[in-house]
Amino acid sequence: MHILILNGANLNLLGKREPAIYGGVSMEDFLASLQQEYKTVTIDYVQSNNETILTEQIQQAENQYNGIIINAGAFTHTSIVISDAIRAICIPVVEVHISNIFSRESYRQKSWLSEVCVGSICGFGLNSYQLAVEGLLLMHHQFRQESGLSD
Amino acid sequence: MHILILNGANLNLLGKREPAIYGGVSMEDFLASLQQEYKTVTIDYVQSNNETILTEQIQQAENQYNGIIINAGAFTHTSIVISDAIRAICIPVVEVHISNIFSRESYRQKSWLSEVCVGSICGFGLNSYQLAVEGLLLMHHQFRQESGLSD
Amino acid sequence: MHILILNGANLNLLGKREPAIYGGVSMEDFLASLQQEYKTVTIDYVQSNNETILTEQIQQAENQYNGIIINAGAFTHTSIVISDAIRAICIPVVEVHISNIFSRESYRQKSWLSEVCVGSICGFGLNSYQLAVEGLLLMHHQFRQESGLSD
Amino acid sequence: MHILILNGANLNLLGKREPAIYGGVSMEDFLASLQQEYKTVTIDYVQSNNETILTEQIQQAENQYNGIIINAGAFTHTSIVISDAIRAICIPVVEVHISNIFSRESYRQKSWLSEVCVGSICGFGLNSYQLAVEGLLLMHHQFRQESGLSD
Amino acid sequence: MHILILNGANLNLLGKREPAIYGGVSMEDFLASLQQEYKTVTIDYVQSNNETILTEQIQQAENQYNGIIINAGAFTHTSIVISDAIRAICIPVVEVHISNIFSRESYRQKSWLSEVCVGSICGFGLNSYQLAVEGLLLMHHQFRQESGLSD
Amino acid sequence: MHILILNGANLNLLGKREPAIYGGVSMEDFLASLQQEYKTVTIDYVQSNNETILTEQIQQAENQYNGIIINAGAFTHTSIVISDAIRAICIPVVEVHISNIFSRESYRQKSWLSEVCVGSICGFGLNSYQLAVEGLLLMHHQFRQESGLSD
Amino acid sequence: MHILILNGANLNLLGKREPAIYGGVSMEDFLASLQQEYKTVTIDYVQSNNETILTEQIQQAENQYNGIIINAGAFTHTSIVISDAIRAICIPVVEVHISNIFSRESYRQKSWLSEVCVGSICGFGLNSYQLAVEGLLLMHHQFRQESGLSD
Amino acid sequence: MHILILNGANLNLLGKREPAIYGGVSMEDFLASLQQEYKTVTIDYVQSNNETILTEQIQQAENQYNGIIINAGAFTHTSIVISDAIRAICIPVVEVHISNIFSRESYRQKSWLSEVCVGSICGFGLNSYQLAVEGLLLMHHQFRQESGLSD
Amino acid sequence: MHILILNGANLNLLGKREPAIYGGVSMEDFLASLQQEYKTVTIDYVQSNNETILTEQIQQAENQYNGIIINAGAFTHTSIVISDAIRAICIPVVEVHISNIFSRESYRQKSWLSEVCVGSICGFGLNSYQLAVEGLLLMHHQFRQESGLSD
Amino acid sequence: MHILILNGANLNLLGKREPAIYGGVSMEDFLASLQQEYKTVTIDYVQSNNETILTEQIQQAENQYNGIIINAGAFTHTSIVISDAIRAICIPVVEVHISNIFSRESYRQKSWLSEVCVGSICGFGLNSYQLAVEGLLLMHHQFRQESGLSD
Amino acid sequence: MHILILNGANLNLLGKREPAIYGGVSMEDFLASLQQEYKTVTIDYVQSNNETILTEQIQQAENQYNGIIINAGAFTHTSIVISDAIRAICIPVVEVHISNIFSRESYRQKSWLSEVCVGSICGFGLNSYQLAVEGLLLMHHQFRQESGLSD
Amino acid sequence: MHILILNGANLNLLGKREPAIYGGVSMEDFLASLQQEYKTVTIDYVQSNNETILTEQIQQAENQYNGIIINAGAFTHTSIVISDAIRAICIPVVEVHISNIFSRESYRQKSWLSEVCVGSICGFGLNSYQLAVEGLLLMHHQFRQESGLSD
Repeated sequence: MHILILNGANLNLLGKREPAIYGGVSMEDFLASLQQEYKTVTIDYVQSNNETILTEQIQQAENQYNGIIINAGAFTHTSIVISDAIRAICIPVVEVHISNIFSRESYRQKSWLSEVCVGSICGFGLNSYQLAVEGLLLMHHQFRQESGLSD
Repeated sequence: MHILILNGANLNLLGKREPAIYGGVSMEDFLASLQQEYKTVTIDYVQSNNETILTEQIQQAENQYNGIIINAGAFTHTSIVISDAIRAICIPVVEVHISNIFSRESYRQKSWLSEVCVGSICGFGLNSYQLAVEGLLLMHHQFRQESGLSD
Repeated sequence: MHILILNGANLNLLGKREPAIYGGVSMEDFLASLQQEYKTVTIDYVQSNNETILTEQIQQAENQYNGIIINAGAFTHTSIVISDAIRAICIPVVEVHISNIFSRESYRQKSWLSEVCVGSICGFGLNSYQLAVEGLLLMHHQFRQESGLSD
Repeated sequence: MHILILNGANLNLLGKREPAIYGGVSMEDFLASLQQEYKTVTIDYVQSNNETILTEQIQQAENQYNGIIINAGAFTHTSIVISDAIRAICIPVVEVHISNIFSRESYRQKSWLSEVCVGSICGFGLNSYQLAVEGLLLMHHQFRQESGLSD
Repeated sequence: MHILILNGANLNLLGKREPAIYGGVSMEDFLASLQQEYKTVTIDYVQSNNETILTEQIQQAENQYNGIIINAGAFTHTSIVISDAIRAICIPVVEVHISNIFSRESYRQKSWLSEVCVGSICGFGLNSYQLAVEGLLLMHHQFRQESGLSD
Repeated sequence: MHILILNGANLNLLGKREPAIYGGVSMEDFLASLQQEYKTVTIDYVQSNNETILTEQIQQAENQYNGIIINAGAFTHTSIVISDAIRAICIPVVEVHISNIFSRESYRQKSWLSEVCVGSICGFGLNSYQLAVEGLLLMHHQFRQESGLSD
Repeated sequence: MHILILNGANLNLLGKREPAIYGGVSMEDFLASLQQEYKTVTIDYVQSNNETILTEQIQQAENQYNGIIINAGAFTHTSIVISDAIRAICIPVVEVHISNIFSRESYRQKSWLSEVCVGSICGFGLNSYQLAVEGLLLMHHQFRQESGLSD
Repeated sequence: MHILILNGANLNLLGKREPAIYGGVSMEDFLASLQQEYKTVTIDYVQSNNETILTEQIQQAENQYNGIIINAGAFTHTSIVISDAIRAICIPVVEVHISNIFSRESYRQKSWLSEVCVGSICGFGLNSYQLAVEGLLLMHHQFRQESGLSD
Repeated sequence: MHILILNGANLNLLGKREPAIYGGVSMEDFLASLQQEYKTVTIDYVQSNNETILTEQIQQAENQYNGIIINAGAFTHTSIVISDAIRAICIPVVEVHISNIFSRESYRQKSWLSEVCVGSICGFGLNSYQLAVEGLLLMHHQFRQESGLSD
Repeated sequence: MHILILNGANLNLLGKREPAIYGGVSMEDFLASLQQEYKTVTIDYVQSNNETILTEQIQQAENQYNGIIINAGAFTHTSIVISDAIRAICIPVVEVHISNIFSRESYRQKSWLSEVCVGSICGFGLNSYQLAVEGLLLMHHQFRQESGLSD
Repeated sequence: MHILILNGANLNLLGKREPAIYGGVSMEDFLASLQQEYKTVTIDYVQSNNETILTEQIQQAENQYNGIIINAGAFTHTSIVISDAIRAICIPVVEVHISNIFSRESYRQKSWLSEVCVGSICGFGLNSYQLAVEGLLLMHHQFRQESGLSD
Repeated sequence: MHILILNGANLNLLGKREPAIYGGVSMEDFLASLQQEYKTVTIDYVQSNNETILTEQIQQAENQYNGIIINAGAFTHTSIVISDAIRAICIPVVEVHISNIFSRESYRQKSWLSEVCVGSICGFGLNSYQLAVEGLLLMHHQFRQESGLSD
């Protein structure tokens, strides 16, 4: 099982920027412990402040990964381009947010990605990513079972 | 660890109603396997089509449970009363939805509960509930760690 | 042929409340004469000011009735729960209103039920219910004819 | 009892156009069987794609008919002119629609006519017209009874 | 003079829930001192989290009380059913709110009840109820004076 | 205890203008009886059709009065200037309206003052002012009690 | 001086339809007295319930008339076609309404014609037409004076 | 016959300000020729940039004048206070505008005065005032005729 | 190949009306040179200011033509009737506009026809029609190729 | 060089009112140091809570000043009258705000003045005024240079 | 004649992504046949998922090309930056879309580019590009003719 | 004192593009004279049409500069990503615009940056940048004074 975690705009500042909202742990530290927890899963990580790089990562992920976990940062609220890229591929994409976007500014409550992802998870801090990994595993397991395959 | 799963309007029909959207498994069968998976957690389940019963379950849960998982069904989109009850208690409440509400009718995209819950999970079928249990466990674990308690 | 007539909020006051809008005849008197007119049809009647009772009546009607006639009163304009219950069953549901809701307050012109019912009738006073019975009979008759059954 | 059935724009195509929505029976065949059913009522029928003709039919109907049944087609959603003509006459006008306009495009849910008609019926296929005839008869009967006249 | 005080959703938590907004005094203690102050008035009190119970209390109050004081809690912002019940009775109903609803969330600024009540009072803490009692007394007194009755 | 009653635009016509809405008693007669009722309170009264005079009365009231009762007339719906003046002072201001503004034209339902006043009272005729005096007294009394002062 | 008065939809009913709004005098009687009053002006009159006829009358008026007075009836609120025709010609067009459209239904307050006419007059009953004649005369007179022509 | 012409904000600049829109003639010159034309009518003129002065002129006009012609300038679009003053008096008030407000900025198309005036005239330059005088004369004449009085 | 070009309201004025927007060439001259260019295509032309004629031309075109090119003029923005007629037929309809409607008044940017046409072309002056002919030819050619027919 | 600084509603309270937003320095102290800094510029200062006085100051400034700096206070958000006065004069007007109005209540983000001023400056505390003086000086200097004048 | 075809976001997937909407032909194959058809025109092609590259291509095209054909993909609906670049250059830009964007999701119906392009073409599949080439040729030809140049 | 001036999309065209709006001076020439004027301040300049580069410049500026002056061009109206970057750093950012954005297209009046910048300046041509430098200097000076530091 291969999973790609995609982080978007300003998420390179995690652990430094507005810790009251986003927490004080860096993404790198978190990923290390996450990989530790899920030894049978290969987790790749890409962060970019660039809409084009995120878009092309999604386009190319189809052949390399079983699923994508995306936190597009502020692109969540403005990028139909990323949304169209997700629509164009066939592997499941899960949307995550660190904070509860529904209790923040009203413009953060519109996500162009939710509609095209299989599911959304928000509000659990960095654990939102771990729940997304769990969710992709459960879907994968269920699909194989329904197809009569062993895991 | 005690968790209350609260299901709202028309969710007594799970497994029977619109299986293309909600799946063909009944809540009872799902809960049995969920309890099996999380042996150290006591999971109680209440379903009601009644806004008042849901409201009072939330009011009274504070002293009995470490967290609530709520899928209020259509009350999600209409009930400020349930939202106020959640606001009034201090234990964490997680909102779940079986389907991806963001790819359905536009009126299903407004949730009165999201803003007052700690987090939201939708689109993973019945697995949304399992992810919510995981989420509550991770929060609980983290809280105890930060407080210097052993699990 | 079995038909359930469901009346919602404040319709227990029929004949007493705002007679300029709702007329001066009680529902009981009207039903007696309606049953008289349609002797081959069994007409059951439930009135409730309770959204939950209305919802569960609809859920359970599927096995007992050939059709439902519903006037949900003010729940018409607020209850997605009732609308979801109608969506979940397979027998035809007809929406009726005593008054012409389109010539009243603007908020009475939004019905959550219209979209999920097979048809709507409003403005004929209590006769709206009689027209709904006629409509269900015509549908029933046409269905049996198309299926090659005798009535 | 004289009744005028007025059909508006594109309803000359009934039985040919979009049969999944409007059915496969022509208006002429339906009217023949309708007249057969209501032998004591004289039913006249006018179809026009022309707003002016519909308007003037309504203006002139007052002296010739006891009631009008109107399905204005797409003029329903755009014509204040027809709505003003209905407002200007004193005989009852009933609005009908073949399909359930509330489960179609959002712009079909605004009717300029509903507010000025005595009642509305939609969703019963061509039977909507028959229910409208019934409705006018019931109103007529009730009026004569209240006025102490024999039918 | 008989007055009914009706409290709606979540107001059973008064004195416990969000004291920064709703104060730390329980309704029971407040009512005792209120009854003490107005010895010639009989004050009954009903609290319910149930829309139906509130609705039927209003329907039945007409014959037993000279006036109603209602704080419907969150039903204020969602219940046309309660609003219709108030519209259906003839005794004066006064709307009260403990907090100043106009300086809170925007959705708390729409009240379905204001339009059908004789008057509204908000922002005085529990004293809002006392002012409502005063208001009903002043109206009652004025009515009797204008009718030539002694108090 | 010193209270300032401020009346705004067109309220010099009270007793003369639209008596069906505003009643037939003049403000002067009402104030005389009000002062009579509350002998320990000094009540000053200013009416002006001038937004500037009202604004400056509010600015200067802080040192002279324990509270203000304001009915700004139509300025209620248009004046952010008056609203800013209230926001700038520290004594409590109560908004009153003679009529029930929520059952009148929709533009009368937006008040720029509600949000910055401590409370609002409407619909009791001239008695709205008396209830506001009561409200200020109750607040004053409660404040002195909490501060350990005798009245 | 030649003036064309154009009356639109349902204005053939003037003197008969809703006299509380439109008065009890017929257009024919009014025009006779108007022509009597303005002997030096030739006044032609066309009424039509047909948008096309009104449009083409405007297109052709340019060469025959010095000005148009138009009351398009309900087309006022729906016809961009008529508005485009007015925009296409170079003689002055004055919009009139018998009633005060601003104190009626909100949809009557949007006029597609106002923007393309030189001026608008409403609320004076049939005298609105006479004021429009006066207005065209004053404009004509002023234009000739500024051009150094004698009247 | 006594008529008051009331001009509002910035209309003291007439003849100087934006002549492309408002023309190059001063109000004083225009009024002289207007009075010359209507010798039997006494025309008073007040201009003020002050909302209060305009409001009180309207309040006091009732006993001195048979009608008011008002061009409130930009107060047209913001003053509910002036609108309430017009509503409070019983003599006819006619709204005029020099330019065609409907072909200017969208915010100039909302007038708070139109609804409470008997009629509106715009777009005829200063002649709008003359047409308003004519309109008041025609109404006066008609009223006297209907009352059986000679002029 | 037979093509029908349908021109709507006010397009009989082409070459005369607002040449800055619509150009100075008449439709007749343009059509002559267009027919010259496409010798193998028979191009019929109908212009009408009448919504009904346009509607019926579309209804009847199905059996006579391989495609329709429509510029409905201002009906573009108001006629659901024409839109429904297009929806009812099976031959391809192309929407054209002479000017770029997206850089004009905002109300010209809503087209009821775009959604039901196969494609839209605007902004190329009269050449928009030529491009539409090309478009229909390309579609025709492609369809025959995919069906294995020679042209 | 002569500059007029105009301060509007409630700005007489500067240094006293809500110092967290508006700072603790009075306008008088600030102006003294500003005049000190710009010795070659004559700076006049007028504060008024009166819309009329502000309007007339603007009307009369044209002949006395080279530019105006205006902070209209809450009139910024409501006064089209002041906006029209600015539009009517030919000297440059600069809009300033002490606080950053874009990070406050949403209704403070609409300014009627911005559109008619040459520029806007906000958020620099009292220094906003100094930047406006600089801005007017730069404009003045540039204009003289372009006109070939020495300063 | 030199033409630049610019394709935006996700259009590198043409022929692969959602073929039901975008067809199964790759852009490269289509361009080859297009160049074949228009031998006298040099057609350059740039695709980019990057807003900046598209913007700078437009900025630099002015000196190299006679026209641009742009299909910006999802940037159509979000990029004012690209729209500003088009506004800044003087060669004609034509907007194309493969699908009929008006019969898809509502957010695809707002194009920031339409307003600044000379014309728009949508719905003809890849042929939309060919029609755009034709359109540019026709414009070019007409311009040379009007300037008295031979082609 | 180090200041970074950041220019966004299409501002590399300054001096060339739409000079009626943006002036004819290039940014380079302007910066040279600006640096000349403020010798004690080091001014760096970055222009980019790339949202990512602008975002990362802001992220990295925190340690190198005392303040940022940003004119994001069209990104002003679309980029929450840039707005989030500004929110994430602690040095003051000033928003500038060359033209008065409030007198241009309505979509240019919404700035995502205003809310997160300390202040905004628009409408002074290139001088807007100079006023921003002044503003940062005044803030810096004031901060050092309040901290007891010499400049």
